[in-house]
Amino acid sequence: MKGKSFLALFVGVSSLVCAFPSAAQFAKPEAAVEYRQSALYLMGNHFGRIKAQLDVSKPDLDVIRSSAALIDVLKTLPFEAFLPGTEDIGDTAAKPEVWTDNERFKKLAHEMQDKVSALNAAAKSGDVGAIRTAFGETGKACKNCHEDFRKKR
Amino acid sequence: MKGKSFLALFVGVSSLVCAFPSAAQFAKPEAAVEYRQSALYLMGNHFGRIKAQLDVSKPDLDVIRSSAALIDVLKTLPFEAFLPGTEDIGDTAAKPEVWTDNERFKKLAHEMQDKVSALNAAAKSGDVGAIRTAFGETGKACKNCHEDFRKKR
Repeated sequence: MKGKSFLALFVGVSSLVCAFPSAAQFAKPEAAVEYRQSALYLMGNHFGRIKAQLDVSKPDLDVIRSSAALIDVLKTLPFEAFLPGTEDIGDTAAKPEVWTDNERFKKLAHEMQDKVSALNAAAKSGDVGAIRTAFGETGKACKNCHEDFRKKR
Repeated sequence: MKGKSFLALFVGVSSLVCAFPSAAQFAKPEAAVEYRQSALYLMGNHFGRIKAQLDVSKPDLDVIRSSAALIDVLKTLPFEAFLPGTEDIGDTAAKPEVWTDNERFKKLAHEMQDKVSALNAAAKSGDVGAIRTAFGETGKACKNCHEDFRKKR
């Protein structure tokens, strides 16, 4: 039974070429939504872990470094999945503007990604002041995009 | 309004020390469930991408390499989040055995992680035969754990 569902996953992925031609990496629109939400969730969780360290008198630099490195790895993933045909799917919080003003959406995504790179570099340096500055700028970049492109929950 | 929710996220993360003492990285049990599901979802998606390449006559080694590297980064994340107090939360598919037979659960997790390391090494080598073997072994390791510790959906 489990072997069957294991196989079914593969068949689902492999057969997407017919079902969803613009996105070979997703079997169906719901998968794209879950993918982007998963990546953004992990990013948010680890951003919160950095914040928690910056809130205490002796930040654990190992926690900050590992979280910043992970966010840096994840930072482009969500944007593979805001595909045409994935608007209004499931519980997406994406506003229609993601697709109707896609150039600006991409611009803000790139700005966030640049700030995340800087945060990761600051984390590697171990300079708490620099980490704090880069953290604040990353938070602003997240917020800029959420304000225009994410529905209020 | 958005600034408020942004701040609320941080307060939520920071205040977890009281609410959920065993897990400073999660504000509440639901967050741990969403965290592990998110990491596992990304792992499964990228495992499927490797499979899709192994199913075609000319596998794209760049796709395989990037997916294997990402899975290697993610492979320990889910297991931070199978915490006491997160059984039967939300739509978790985790069986009670995750907690009642935790030693075996951890053993199978470590076996999967070893196989993922080998898959990443094979991907870096670019040897499709070695990738195929390591992929099969990783799939078996996933399945071994899912059979005993994941509810049928």
